[in-house]
Amino acid sequence: MPLKPDLPEPESVERRVGLAIVGLGKLSAEELIPAIRTSQHTRVAALVTSDLEEGRSFARAFDLTENDVYSYEQFEGLKDREDVDAVYIVLPNSLHREYTERAARMGKHVLCEKPLSVNAEEAQAMVEACRAAGVHLMTAYRCQYTPHHWAARNAVQSGTLGQIKLLDSIHVQVEEDPEAWRMKLDLAGGGPLPDVGLYSLNIIRFVLGTEPEWVFAAQHQPKENPLFREVEESVAFMLGFPGGVIANCLTSYGAHKTTTLRILGDQGSALMDPAFSYTGLSLSLTDKAGETLPAFASYDQFGLEIDHFAQRIRDGKTPWTPGEEGVQDHRIMDAIYQSARTGQVVRLGASAGQDLFRGEKPDLPGQEN
Amino acid sequence: MPLKPDLPEPESVERRVGLAIVGLGKLSAEELIPAIRTSQHTRVAALVTSDLEEGRSFARAFDLTENDVYSYEQFEGLKDREDVDAVYIVLPNSLHREYTERAARMGKHVLCEKPLSVNAEEAQAMVEACRAAGVHLMTAYRCQYTPHHWAARNAVQSGTLGQIKLLDSIHVQVEEDPEAWRMKLDLAGGGPLPDVGLYSLNIIRFVLGTEPEWVFAAQHQPKENPLFREVEESVAFMLGFPGGVIANCLTSYGAHKTTTLRILGDQGSALMDPAFSYTGLSLSLTDKAGETLPAFASYDQFGLEIDHFAQRIRDGKTPWTPGEEGVQDHRIMDAIYQSARTGQVVRLGASAGQDLFRGEKPDLPGQEN
Amino acid sequence: MPLKPDLPEPESVERRVGLAIVGLGKLSAEELIPAIRTSQHTRVAALVTSDLEEGRSFARAFDLTENDVYSYEQFEGLKDREDVDAVYIVLPNSLHREYTERAARMGKHVLCEKPLSVNAEEAQAMVEACRAAGVHLMTAYRCQYTPHHWAARNAVQSGTLGQIKLLDSIHVQVEEDPEAWRMKLDLAGGGPLPDVGLYSLNIIRFVLGTEPEWVFAAQHQPKENPLFREVEESVAFMLGFPGGVIANCLTSYGAHKTTTLRILGDQGSALMDPAFSYTGLSLSLTDKAGETLPAFASYDQFGLEIDHFAQRIRDGKTPWTPGEEGVQDHRIMDAIYQSARTGQVVRLGASAGQDLFRGEKPDLPGQEN
Amino acid sequence: MPLKPDLPEPESVERRVGLAIVGLGKLSAEELIPAIRTSQHTRVAALVTSDLEEGRSFARAFDLTENDVYSYEQFEGLKDREDVDAVYIVLPNSLHREYTERAARMGKHVLCEKPLSVNAEEAQAMVEACRAAGVHLMTAYRCQYTPHHWAARNAVQSGTLGQIKLLDSIHVQVEEDPEAWRMKLDLAGGGPLPDVGLYSLNIIRFVLGTEPEWVFAAQHQPKENPLFREVEESVAFMLGFPGGVIANCLTSYGAHKTTTLRILGDQGSALMDPAFSYTGLSLSLTDKAGETLPAFASYDQFGLEIDHFAQRIRDGKTPWTPGEEGVQDHRIMDAIYQSARTGQVVRLGASAGQDLFRGEKPDLPGQEN
Repeated sequence: MPLKPDLPEPESVERRVGLAIVGLGKLSAEELIPAIRTSQHTRVAALVTSDLEEGRSFARAFDLTENDVYSYEQFEGLKDREDVDAVYIVLPNSLHREYTERAARMGKHVLCEKPLSVNAEEAQAMVEACRAAGVHLMTAYRCQYTPHHWAARNAVQSGTLGQIKLLDSIHVQVEEDPEAWRMKLDLAGGGPLPDVGLYSLNIIRFVLGTEPEWVFAAQHQPKENPLFREVEESVAFMLGFPGGVIANCLTSYGAHKTTTLRILGDQGSALMDPAFSYTGLSLSLTDKAGETLPAFASYDQFGLEIDHFAQRIRDGKTPWTPGEEGVQDHRIMDAIYQSARTGQVVRLGASAGQDLFRGEKPDLPGQEN
Repeated sequence: MPLKPDLPEPESVERRVGLAIVGLGKLSAEELIPAIRTSQHTRVAALVTSDLEEGRSFARAFDLTENDVYSYEQFEGLKDREDVDAVYIVLPNSLHREYTERAARMGKHVLCEKPLSVNAEEAQAMVEACRAAGVHLMTAYRCQYTPHHWAARNAVQSGTLGQIKLLDSIHVQVEEDPEAWRMKLDLAGGGPLPDVGLYSLNIIRFVLGTEPEWVFAAQHQPKENPLFREVEESVAFMLGFPGGVIANCLTSYGAHKTTTLRILGDQGSALMDPAFSYTGLSLSLTDKAGETLPAFASYDQFGLEIDHFAQRIRDGKTPWTPGEEGVQDHRIMDAIYQSARTGQVVRLGASAGQDLFRGEKPDLPGQEN
Repeated sequence: MPLKPDLPEPESVERRVGLAIVGLGKLSAEELIPAIRTSQHTRVAALVTSDLEEGRSFARAFDLTENDVYSYEQFEGLKDREDVDAVYIVLPNSLHREYTERAARMGKHVLCEKPLSVNAEEAQAMVEACRAAGVHLMTAYRCQYTPHHWAARNAVQSGTLGQIKLLDSIHVQVEEDPEAWRMKLDLAGGGPLPDVGLYSLNIIRFVLGTEPEWVFAAQHQPKENPLFREVEESVAFMLGFPGGVIANCLTSYGAHKTTTLRILGDQGSALMDPAFSYTGLSLSLTDKAGETLPAFASYDQFGLEIDHFAQRIRDGKTPWTPGEEGVQDHRIMDAIYQSARTGQVVRLGASAGQDLFRGEKPDLPGQEN
Repeated sequence: MPLKPDLPEPESVERRVGLAIVGLGKLSAEELIPAIRTSQHTRVAALVTSDLEEGRSFARAFDLTENDVYSYEQFEGLKDREDVDAVYIVLPNSLHREYTERAARMGKHVLCEKPLSVNAEEAQAMVEACRAAGVHLMTAYRCQYTPHHWAARNAVQSGTLGQIKLLDSIHVQVEEDPEAWRMKLDLAGGGPLPDVGLYSLNIIRFVLGTEPEWVFAAQHQPKENPLFREVEESVAFMLGFPGGVIANCLTSYGAHKTTTLRILGDQGSALMDPAFSYTGLSLSLTDKAGETLPAFASYDQFGLEIDHFAQRIRDGKTPWTPGEEGVQDHRIMDAIYQSARTGQVVRLGASAGQDLFRGEKPDLPGQEN
């Protein structure tokens, strides 16, 4: 039988970074756990959920045992699980701080879904708790780990587009369940802004590498609509960056799903549309000679993000999107809400340098750093 | 020879509406005159130019005689030309008022390139001069006469997209000649805003049919660059419409040519990209079922616009985009510049009703009004 | 903790249909095993490979034990594995028959990669072996199980496109390894035709539901090129269907990866481009009114195919693409090669009826059958 | 008035090449005459038509006089018109020869619509008549004069796509009028093949620069349909070029308008879709690095073609697509019909060299030859 395939040997399950998934919602069940099950460097080692019955059926479905399922009260039971290196927090935003702090106290590293918290102050407390405990805190900014978004950033940073002048981004979708935790101010900390608008904000900062100096925003909250009793329906915001660069953004829970990013330079422009979806990302670069759509080998967005976290745990270096990156977005979102309330421009002060709140660059498939 | 084709009989040259083209720039020479030469209801009857030699060579090229060429000083000679029904003003913005008033005094109808003038006050004076003289004044808003833009408007007005929540438009291009009249404040009245940004403003108002209640804007003018000594390089502006609808716009003379319009409703969205080009307009409508790209029979944008003007001259009805439509855009652009200067929101007051500043709807190819 | 998500309960691992993967090549490792690990109704229960060391490292990586790894000599050891319901044969084509017959003798159902075999005669023997043993034989025609391909078929069958007149399909790619088993005639049974050209043939038959009556083909085999010493580089073939419908197809191992399907009716046309890729399939329907790109919920192609197999094992009904479907494609490919050799049209005879070689229709996500 | 625009001086009407348009059908009225009226080097000097009344109304519409209108009987009256340099024959195919010969006898150059005639023999007679009379004969192959098609050809000739292996082209549309001359065999010489399928044939020859060595074809003619009593509905044909390159083509009068060209090389591929339309041509080049859509300055296809003819009249050089180019396509179409009738491959013999039947390359906008 001469048919030996020439395949990369996958890492043995036992040697992988073990993750406890904290929170079994739609994102965990449909995206994260399947992604982790096909990742190279991590594995699901435990599940933390309010519904033990459901947790056990998940465990059965994914080759875990009943002993791998924990209630939130049993969370500290993970401390002695040597095969659990880190927790991945996939809970409502208002709970991020508590579980980050509890995990840090157990010496477990923390990967926390975005937004990092509900405001800059809470987020900063999380950073400090992890620093004090000597564990990593990484904000799960998936889009800062894909070849598509890095190619957009490289087009900016390398000068391919000339001098960048303006940016424009849209992330809107329709939410229909007034009972979802996303629609509750105390659980979510805001409406579409910290949930989907954050992608626009975060990726504009990522491609530029600089920080906004001022913001202006307007919001719309039709309180007579049960959906928007607590949180806004839409926010339009404008960001002023060093050198006169301006970015326009739109976010909403009341408009048909659209995710775009457009970067306008004097030599060319870049368009991502869709810009933030789980699959099917598209990047187009246009200049005088025409339009180019770079090709990328296929990849799993969550897999790349999670494997970066695993590598940083192993080498001890700061993740590319540490807690500080999440804090900075909260600082800006706090200013956006303040502007929307007051109708005034809010200044954020100047900040010098590139990638001020970021750590070690990720290794991307087929990319030289 | 049995091969009689079944063709519409074109209108005899003698019976067509005769136009005097005032100003022989690139737009006249490359777009307007060729379009008029293939239009159904108009013809070029005279040329007005500062360079009589060049005017005569144009006349020779387009089947006119040397007697059809006028200098600006000879403008009033058109008065006795019975075959000249109207003038088409294609001059620097600051001259629009003077030539409109001189034409009105001769009893000639006026089609005036956009922007109508250099500010709302001057524009209003033009409206009043034409009203007093009993002649038509039409603002040449080409994009309010195309099947593509009407299909976008119909998607909004018919509810196909659900309730409209947000809009986004970009019109940017690179200008490189500091000596062009567009870069001189006294000739142009502004920079990219009244030139290309006006498309975004005007077409957003057109598809919604309503008027903005407030504006916010930021601009960038790098005066050390010889191009931008007099006019701004970029303006980002936000428009607040009734019902909490917000529009984000970007315009610039320093960014790679891009023209887009995106309309976001709760049931679907519309995208035009390019949105404002002379040819190749593209409209896409997206909802839960997928994406639709309506097909249109081919047409000439300038031809449709000019033939609408001819029809209104013949039937005496108000053109769809009369002078008042141009005045309203100036009112809003004045507010945008004021906001950019002061960093404050500028309120425009409420205005009730639909299409407040528009006249008789155009007949479009294959469209029922 | 009020955060109970509302999730479908995944099927317990123990209750799923257990598959032995026979052959650990690139397709198994990179597509099939990851797909099975996230499927709803199946699980990987055993691995059969020539390289036990590699098999064990796969087992470690995917939560199997060393006891789940078998060499080809140990294949019959699967007989007593009650948790192995079926084998999935992912071997060089020439081995399909042997392993199908050995599996059938053990009473295991068989899912066999396409092409079913190396010619119609061998393929027919496989059908008969499975029939005699009372086990299912399904040909793994992935593209007959996706919402995209069914929507294309529905556009044909429902009359949306009017009467179908012509079809066109391309499936070409570049092969560079002369040592790959695909380039060996005795292992593969042919070159690009049974490997990638088969997609065009199979999907054209699928969307029409009818069978070709004649074929014409031309091939190119530059034997001086080490890659093509044994198999052809390219085949162009034409298929004549009932009612004068004609399909043109191109397949090659020497042309840049391209996969398309175009269906031309008198009322409209359908385009898939890419038509056969693992991800990113695109379907566009065009008629007088314009172009429509239907939206589909995301899905895993291999998952849908494998879950169909699992359902048929459970309910005992004939799979949609049984062995007979694979035999018919071999019959046609045998005729294509004969035509290419002789330069003559080869007639296949008439066949009445729809979907003559197919079984029970698959349930698709969001589709009513 | 400091506003002198910097414009190219258009050529005086009197100095342009004067054309007599022979035949006032839809193509003349809607495409050719408008194009000529905006071209740089030609002008319409006379009209020849069966309907003098209609001809006169056209004359009035386009600044000609009644004396510029001729019946077919008065055709020889053009002889003494010094301002008529050439005739542009836009008649049913079967009349091309007669009017070419009559024009040649008057010493007028001939631009003849494609197909050049009704078969190779008739076409060859036209070539010889013009040669004997010392006038130019150019076949109006519009698509050999556009920047898009030249960019596709350059991608082939320059090796950008690697070695070319396969091509695929579709040109189909729906004809609905059984009385149209296109549906009469004696007037048209065939059905969709010489009308629209010819584009595929001609442009494949153009991009390769070589000549086919064999053809195979199948056709469908449902004679019970009044539309197809005389001519075929569809033809599928395969062309074999030197080096094993094969092209598949589809043409029809019974399928929804589709025009495509795909070129497959081992390093990349080119796609034109639409490939043959009057406006909106699109070219995409794909290789490992992704997809590129080159940008072109806007142009008028008919204008470029007609201006090439004018230039060749002035410099006396052979047009890029002389009569010989049209004859060669007839030779191949004759073979295609023969193959469709007999079901046999028809061999055309070998022909060495590049662009065997072509003349002086056209100057394209922005292109260095």
